[in-house]
Amino acid sequence: MSGSTFGRIFKVTTWGESHGAAVGAVIDGCPSGVEIDEAYIQSFLDRRKPGQSKYTTKRNEPDKVKVLSGVFEGKTTGTPISLVVENTSQISKDYSDIKDVYRPGHADFGYDVKYGFRDYRGGGRSSGRETIGRVAAGAIAMKVLEGLGVDVYAYVNQIGDIKIDYNSFDRDEIQSNPLCMPDKVAAEKAGVYLDELIAQKDSSGAMVECIVNGVPAGLGEPVFDKLDARLAMAVMSIGAVKGIEIGDGFDVVKSKGSENNDEFYMDEGVVAKKTNHSGGILGGISDGADIILRAAFKPTPSIFQKQSTVDNKGNDVEIEIKGRHDPIIAPRAVVVVEAMVAMTILDMMLLDIKL
Amino acid sequence: MSGSTFGRIFKVTTWGESHGAAVGAVIDGCPSGVEIDEAYIQSFLDRRKPGQSKYTTKRNEPDKVKVLSGVFEGKTTGTPISLVVENTSQISKDYSDIKDVYRPGHADFGYDVKYGFRDYRGGGRSSGRETIGRVAAGAIAMKVLEGLGVDVYAYVNQIGDIKIDYNSFDRDEIQSNPLCMPDKVAAEKAGVYLDELIAQKDSSGAMVECIVNGVPAGLGEPVFDKLDARLAMAVMSIGAVKGIEIGDGFDVVKSKGSENNDEFYMDEGVVAKKTNHSGGILGGISDGADIILRAAFKPTPSIFQKQSTVDNKGNDVEIEIKGRHDPIIAPRAVVVVEAMVAMTILDMMLLDIKL
Amino acid sequence: MSGSTFGRIFKVTTWGESHGAAVGAVIDGCPSGVEIDEAYIQSFLDRRKPGQSKYTTKRNEPDKVKVLSGVFEGKTTGTPISLVVENTSQISKDYSDIKDVYRPGHADFGYDVKYGFRDYRGGGRSSGRETIGRVAAGAIAMKVLEGLGVDVYAYVNQIGDIKIDYNSFDRDEIQSNPLCMPDKVAAEKAGVYLDELIAQKDSSGAMVECIVNGVPAGLGEPVFDKLDARLAMAVMSIGAVKGIEIGDGFDVVKSKGSENNDEFYMDEGVVAKKTNHSGGILGGISDGADIILRAAFKPTPSIFQKQSTVDNKGNDVEIEIKGRHDPIIAPRAVVVVEAMVAMTILDMMLLDIKL
Amino acid sequence: MSGSTFGRIFKVTTWGESHGAAVGAVIDGCPSGVEIDEAYIQSFLDRRKPGQSKYTTKRNEPDKVKVLSGVFEGKTTGTPISLVVENTSQISKDYSDIKDVYRPGHADFGYDVKYGFRDYRGGGRSSGRETIGRVAAGAIAMKVLEGLGVDVYAYVNQIGDIKIDYNSFDRDEIQSNPLCMPDKVAAEKAGVYLDELIAQKDSSGAMVECIVNGVPAGLGEPVFDKLDARLAMAVMSIGAVKGIEIGDGFDVVKSKGSENNDEFYMDEGVVAKKTNHSGGILGGISDGADIILRAAFKPTPSIFQKQSTVDNKGNDVEIEIKGRHDPIIAPRAVVVVEAMVAMTILDMMLLDIKL
Repeated sequence: MSGSTFGRIFKVTTWGESHGAAVGAVIDGCPSGVEIDEAYIQSFLDRRKPGQSKYTTKRNEPDKVKVLSGVFEGKTTGTPISLVVENTSQISKDYSDIKDVYRPGHADFGYDVKYGFRDYRGGGRSSGRETIGRVAAGAIAMKVLEGLGVDVYAYVNQIGDIKIDYNSFDRDEIQSNPLCMPDKVAAEKAGVYLDELIAQKDSSGAMVECIVNGVPAGLGEPVFDKLDARLAMAVMSIGAVKGIEIGDGFDVVKSKGSENNDEFYMDEGVVAKKTNHSGGILGGISDGADIILRAAFKPTPSIFQKQSTVDNKGNDVEIEIKGRHDPIIAPRAVVVVEAMVAMTILDMMLLDIKL
Repeated sequence: MSGSTFGRIFKVTTWGESHGAAVGAVIDGCPSGVEIDEAYIQSFLDRRKPGQSKYTTKRNEPDKVKVLSGVFEGKTTGTPISLVVENTSQISKDYSDIKDVYRPGHADFGYDVKYGFRDYRGGGRSSGRETIGRVAAGAIAMKVLEGLGVDVYAYVNQIGDIKIDYNSFDRDEIQSNPLCMPDKVAAEKAGVYLDELIAQKDSSGAMVECIVNGVPAGLGEPVFDKLDARLAMAVMSIGAVKGIEIGDGFDVVKSKGSENNDEFYMDEGVVAKKTNHSGGILGGISDGADIILRAAFKPTPSIFQKQSTVDNKGNDVEIEIKGRHDPIIAPRAVVVVEAMVAMTILDMMLLDIKL
Repeated sequence: MSGSTFGRIFKVTTWGESHGAAVGAVIDGCPSGVEIDEAYIQSFLDRRKPGQSKYTTKRNEPDKVKVLSGVFEGKTTGTPISLVVENTSQISKDYSDIKDVYRPGHADFGYDVKYGFRDYRGGGRSSGRETIGRVAAGAIAMKVLEGLGVDVYAYVNQIGDIKIDYNSFDRDEIQSNPLCMPDKVAAEKAGVYLDELIAQKDSSGAMVECIVNGVPAGLGEPVFDKLDARLAMAVMSIGAVKGIEIGDGFDVVKSKGSENNDEFYMDEGVVAKKTNHSGGILGGISDGADIILRAAFKPTPSIFQKQSTVDNKGNDVEIEIKGRHDPIIAPRAVVVVEAMVAMTILDMMLLDIKL
Repeated sequence: MSGSTFGRIFKVTTWGESHGAAVGAVIDGCPSGVEIDEAYIQSFLDRRKPGQSKYTTKRNEPDKVKVLSGVFEGKTTGTPISLVVENTSQISKDYSDIKDVYRPGHADFGYDVKYGFRDYRGGGRSSGRETIGRVAAGAIAMKVLEGLGVDVYAYVNQIGDIKIDYNSFDRDEIQSNPLCMPDKVAAEKAGVYLDELIAQKDSSGAMVECIVNGVPAGLGEPVFDKLDARLAMAVMSIGAVKGIEIGDGFDVVKSKGSENNDEFYMDEGVVAKKTNHSGGILGGISDGADIILRAAFKPTPSIFQKQSTVDNKGNDVEIEIKGRHDPIIAPRAVVVVEAMVAMTILDMMLLDIKL
């Protein structure tokens, strides 16, 4: 019945449902003296805000964050930071279409078995709005990491069959096009593909890639708390993620040791690697190269086609979902991936400080 | 400096290095009254024992487990179970080839940065022998799960380009052929491929698939402790794993909602699904279908070809690794995957018990 | 920098400072289906509210609790319960008396060393207002325990030299007199004593006793997580507590085995004890008798006499504290003790559920 | 069913029963590079070894510790340290006196209810032998603390009515007399008292005091993880402890703020306190003065007088305990208190390291 806290030292607890009064997060374990203001956190929340393009739901939420504790005279005090975002768009509507029916691709059925009942007005804690707390907390982790020289950024690198061209990689594009792809041409193609799916009342999967630059070698624990293991948990805990890989990832299956090993060499007095098949992590410990990970996001399960399912009385029924739903999850999840990765990296850095 | 404990309720702590006196595990939180004997645990350890085929190192270790506590008159007492396996094959040898040199594809460099020095006689805690403790503990988790009607099994489903044919799936084959593939023909083809690689002093990657049958719907926590997030961490914590996916995994990137959603239907009074693209988990909670996951294992990094690297004085050097090393990691890791999955499932079942 | 979360399964995180926007708590791990409303929680908060007698500060706070998540249609959903109480009485005042000066008996000095700076407007997280979150969460724990037949109640049993007479023990008195003593006569005597101290600008220590009835035998873990060890941590974590004892407590020092051992006997088919020197716990595990514990509360450190101290520039200075401060801490802390004990007992019951 | 692990960063897991093959501990999270050898650890174990005077059981155990992992070339590697002590004195004997009978003052009854059965040959995990693992781990914590300038020592300061005279305090006496009192005269008086009790087949309670010198101000977390709260849990987790107090402890009940507050002053440029009523901790955070705590140990419950009790079939019976039992617990527990305090202080120092 628990599991809403993430981290060992930099601990984040999120709370709130999509149709309750508010959602939020409490961060316990943030170092003191970090300069933080609401505008900074807000800039991260604005990146996951709905209603910004035709590919995101029209739910009109300002998602304004308030800091209720833990910051004094513009700096973190080292005590818990409480962050709250009110749910202003809880329009009362008719839930009869989903109240007693298990939506395919959603956790509704599991919820009912687990808890005995559920808040049928939305996905409960499985709602995408739960990630607001993650993003707000992630913004603060990012700020601390910035001071430590660590840079975390993510983007959509594939939608359906359309992949970005790494030769045209343009980091500025990530926040410029609605699909958060660092390649304008690919984003346009993907837009056409999504338009077709929208017309078909369907939705698309996608891949998000995340890069972490600046993590020094030596971070991570060698056994259960491997850096990649912690990252895998962090990213897989985002709803809709069905796979996570580091460096060459699943391609290693077809690879040989002579290809996959990254040879070390001295680069102006510093240990460096000629390649980065490892994605910056060897044996669970960072090797000084960029950390590279990818997550597979499934297509939005809420589609507007008629689907067969069952209700909570044990009847076979049909369902036609109404309302506001993105035809693709990944673009708004980019900042969520960044948040989860940033919190993981910071948490492990705090855990690893030497005497 | 920590991170050697896994689990919340069924907690396993492993200890020991490949070249120390022994390796072992302590399990805290095992329910009382479970019938356990050393022979049962031994049968799991024997599956990861070296020297059983030409694809596994000839290091001759009996790997005999001793139970030092927590079992009385054949049953677990509910108190910590201490499991120890002596390292009998710690032949003294010349380590000058690796003492001061960072092996490509290994954690040596990260270790030195992290700890200031390392036990250069083997991989330290990154050694495959660390998994002995996991397998012994996993055997006990398996025993408890058996009593709960849960069946966990894994196998190699791909080596290089060679995939098993699911139409020829034969579970008995898993423990019959040295590559742990449930398809005799595929195993033979893969054997030929590995023979070539051995001749080239090279190694191969592979994929392991794991099935969990019998997990009731409703297991898992909806936010950070999603069932798939916990499984991802567990499996990614196995050395050499570079990717983990659930159900359709990375294929969801190209999929559409109308394809990926599993429709529910009533099957003789029980909620069932027509397909299982989700791999048994929706929104982090089990949906009652088989849990399906796959892990990508990189090729053994210890290859016998000459490689460029650096030493711990900052010199560019060449290394030619000697000794005993498997040309493929996955077959001996199959039982490790089973162990990690079993411990995760049991731990979450214990965590989820209702008042 | 962390440490604001309590519990393993029933996990409570408190946040907020006395002079921030609000204080609150998030409960993760509460079972689903528990009937909860704000009025019920409010009734607990009202017991620690200031301004109710001449022995409590006149700070005029309504301390109204709002439930922001985790409750749907009057029942807990099993997901995090977010509780918030606004600080309405943050009157801006002149803090020059305490801004740079370390108040004797307070954590000011330790805070500055630990965090580098502090919110000088109040005690920060050491403020008594932090316990609002504990009491709100404790109210919910109480509700769950009620359903399990467990009854937790505390009271002041000694102020200065004045002890209650157990022959006149009257539970109804606890919430009837301002000193929360279950003996009207003792409360009146203590009132006279406190009046003297107020006149002398001084304050008094006191003892709080807590009884838990209805805990079945067999609760608690035999080693580090002994039931009494967890209770000791819980109660000692309340500001101003300097000692905690179980059963005969410090009297055991002078006792003999023949006196201290409680003999068992059969009482209508049930194992019972002739005496309860153990205070309901043997070897860290409940023995079925009432759990009895006592906590020693130091006198309020904020007294109005002139005191010598130092400032944060390293000067010897004098301080004369102004403002609103109770002459005794214990009466308002009674409900905090109940809350901490209830959360501990419930958490261990949830941790101990059998397969 | 768990609870055998102590600590957040410096994590110690103990295992083993008095009549099993061995007892031991695994330390995860010890910093690397600490010089450790078995002789050093042994010197701590020898202080709790039985058979050293007429006040300790004659059970003849060498209690020789072996280090099985985590130490390489005389230094800790930063990976888990496995410590094992064989039980050599498991003489087979007749347990019919205690097999089915609940000994008064012991956890036997609670054990049977909790686990469904128990290892009736000794106290199981409640046996004093469980503390071997704590002492071995504590020795290593002590070594690390030594390097940080922290000195932890404990002693018996009261047995029955006999208290030490602080004017005659002689630290060397602690390890010179069999009762571990730092006052030879008091130890002799207490010896006479114990001789009487032995003649009466009875046992005595006692108090242990522990001093920690050298902890810098600023250690501890302000809310649930107060330094004193963590210490209270640590010390109360030692079997037979029924009370724990810090500084003036229970005397604060009768004290006034003007007496209890410690005034600060500048002592050669350093913040100091004129008195130490706080016992070195204010608001859960160290204030730079010596940490002072006291624990009340109950009389040994195993006395040789005939006692009434019940058996596990629900019959009223009489029991006359046989075998080897100390007439007082505290002297051998002195080193256990030191171990628990040292582990707590070190763990919190590791947890508190700043970026």
